[in-house]
Amino acid sequence: MSLFNTNRICGLLGVKYPFIEGGMAWVGTPRLAAAVSEAGGLGTIGSGALTPEDLAESIDTTRRQTNKPFAVNVMLLNPSADRQVEVCLQKAIPVLIFGAGNPAKYLPDLKKRGIVTAAVVASETLALYLEERGIDVIIGEGMECGGHVGTVTTFTLIPALKDVLFSVPVVAAGGIADERGIKAAFCLGAEGVQIGTRLIATVECEAHDRYKQRIITSGIRDTLLTGQALGHPARVLKSAFAKRVCKLEASDPKEAESLITGSLRKAFEDGDEERGLFMAGQSAGLIQSIPSVSELFELWAQRLDGWNQIAGTETKIAENLKEGVYERSGNL
Amino acid sequence: MSLFNTNRICGLLGVKYPFIEGGMAWVGTPRLAAAVSEAGGLGTIGSGALTPEDLAESIDTTRRQTNKPFAVNVMLLNPSADRQVEVCLQKAIPVLIFGAGNPAKYLPDLKKRGIVTAAVVASETLALYLEERGIDVIIGEGMECGGHVGTVTTFTLIPALKDVLFSVPVVAAGGIADERGIKAAFCLGAEGVQIGTRLIATVECEAHDRYKQRIITSGIRDTLLTGQALGHPARVLKSAFAKRVCKLEASDPKEAESLITGSLRKAFEDGDEERGLFMAGQSAGLIQSIPSVSELFELWAQRLDGWNQIAGTETKIAENLKEGVYERSGNL
Repeated sequence: MSLFNTNRICGLLGVKYPFIEGGMAWVGTPRLAAAVSEAGGLGTIGSGALTPEDLAESIDTTRRQTNKPFAVNVMLLNPSADRQVEVCLQKAIPVLIFGAGNPAKYLPDLKKRGIVTAAVVASETLALYLEERGIDVIIGEGMECGGHVGTVTTFTLIPALKDVLFSVPVVAAGGIADERGIKAAFCLGAEGVQIGTRLIATVECEAHDRYKQRIITSGIRDTLLTGQALGHPARVLKSAFAKRVCKLEASDPKEAESLITGSLRKAFEDGDEERGLFMAGQSAGLIQSIPSVSELFELWAQRLDGWNQIAGTETKIAENLKEGVYERSGNL
Repeated sequence: MSLFNTNRICGLLGVKYPFIEGGMAWVGTPRLAAAVSEAGGLGTIGSGALTPEDLAESIDTTRRQTNKPFAVNVMLLNPSADRQVEVCLQKAIPVLIFGAGNPAKYLPDLKKRGIVTAAVVASETLALYLEERGIDVIIGEGMECGGHVGTVTTFTLIPALKDVLFSVPVVAAGGIADERGIKAAFCLGAEGVQIGTRLIATVECEAHDRYKQRIITSGIRDTLLTGQALGHPARVLKSAFAKRVCKLEASDPKEAESLITGSLRKAFEDGDEERGLFMAGQSAGLIQSIPSVSELFELWAQRLDGWNQIAGTETKIAENLKEGVYERSGNL
C-alpha cells in the first residue's frame, strides 16, 4: 500500500500497517496480540494485571501463534514493572511500550540492546523529555480513550506533540475506530495509530461477549470517568454500577477503591454488569460490528489505498526488524 | 481554491472559505465579525451578552464595515433569545447560528423566510432531531473548545454526526487552530470548520491584549473547567482565580456563581487576571502568533490548496447567497 511504503512506524516496528494494539490489561491477551500481528499490525501484550511469571508465559503463548513481531506494554504504576522489563529482555521482545509513567531510566539499556521503545503520553513536556533521552516513538493518547485518561484531546495533543518534538515520530491514540480517524490522525501529524476499543469488539478478543455487545450498542456519550476524585481517572462505559462508584468517590473513597479493584477482570471474564467496569473510549459510539482483526485491517487498507496524505518529513525506509533479530541496524 | 468549489457550506453561506467564526459573548464584536467576513469566512456576532437593542446596534455597526454576509449567534439560555431572533429578522440577517439549547421552535418560520439556520451541538441525538425539523447546518463542537462544553471530543463527535445525519452538512468546532485541524476535520466528515480561540488571538479581535497574550503563552494543558459542580461547565485558561472558583463550587456554590458573573467581561475589557475568566480552548497551546484575520485565512488557503480530500458526498454547487437577497433559491 503506497501510503505506508515510506512510513517510519512501519519501518521501525517491522509491520505492514502502522496500526498498534493499545496496551490493555486483561483484554490484551496472546490470542488478540497474535491476531493483530498476523493481520499486519503490531500486537501488544497488556501486562498491567500480569505477574512477571504470567507475562513470560503470555509471551511464549503468543509466540506459538505468530512469528511476527509484537510488543509488550509495561504499565509503570505496576510495582513489578522492573521485573517485567527484565522478562521482556530475557524473552527478546523487540518493542516495549511504556504507559502510566516515565520510563526514562530504562532507555539507555534498551537502546544499547537495539530494542524499540515507545511511550504513551498525555503531555507534550514528557514527550520532549523522553525524546531527549532516546525514546523511539511517542504515542499521544487523547482523553477520549478508554481506560486511564489525561486531560487533553487527540485533536489538540497530536499537533502539540509535533510542534515540540524534533524528529521522533508520533502515533495517535484515543478516538480512532475507522479509516476516518486514521486519516485525520495523519493530517494532525501522526505517522501511525494505536487502537484500543475497536479491537475489543473483534472475534479474536477474548473479552466476554457482553463486553463486546456493550461496546457496539453504546453511543459516543455513553462513557464516564471513574476515579476522578481518587486521582486516577479512567473511562468506562456508563452503567448503574459505574455511577454508584462515582458517587462513592466523594463520600467514601475507600469503599470506591475497593469496588474498582477487580472490576475490569469481572467485566472481561464474566461480563458482569453488576460489579464490572467496562473500560472503553468514546469511540464505542462509532463501533457497530464485531469483525475479525484481519477483516478490519483489510477494510482500512482498502479505504486508505491511494490516499496520498503522507504525514511527516521525507524518510528513508528503515530496515525491517527481522524475525529473530532484535538488533536495530542503524538509526533513522 | 479547488477544494472549496463544490463545498456545500460555501454555497449555503455565500462565503469563499468554509470558515465560520464561533459565537463568542463579548469577544464576538462587529469589528471581528466584519474582519472574518471580509477575509472570506463567515463572521459572527456573539449576542450572548447583548440586549436586543445592543444587538440591533451591533448589526448596524457590522454593516458599516462589510457588505459580505455574516451571522448572528443566538444563545438560547439568554432569556431575551426570542427578541434577539426578532431583531435578526427585522435586520434581514441571512444566517442564524443557535447555541446552548434546542432551536426547533424557530425553524419553520426561518425556513419560510429563506434564512439559513445552524445549530451548535454536542449530541448526535439533538442533531438528528434538528435535521428532521429542517436545520440547514449542524456544527458539532468537541469538548476541547473554549467556553461552554459538552462531554465528547471533536474526534469522536464529528464521525458520529456523519453516521446519524442523512444529508445535512456538518461543521467541526473545538480544537481547530490551523490547517492541520481543518484537514483532519474534513477527513472525519466535516465540510467546514468553526473557529473560536484562534480568532481571539488576532489583530482585529478587540479583547484586551492580556487576553491575547495569555492565549499565545498557554500550552494545551493550561485550561480547566469551571462550573462543573454548578451544571454549566465552561473551559477557561488556568489561573489562581479560576482554581479558586473551582474550589468554591463544591463548598459555596452561590459565591462561586457570583464570581463567575461578569468574569468574561473583566477578561475581555480589562484583561483582569484577578477577577477575570479567560474563556479559551485547549487549542490555545497551538497558537503562538497574533496575525490579522486575512493573513490567517490566506495562509490556510495556501496550505490547503491542491489538497484533494473533499469530504462528504458529491454535491452540486448551491447558488451563493447574494448580498441583499436573503431568499434561499431552491434546496440543496
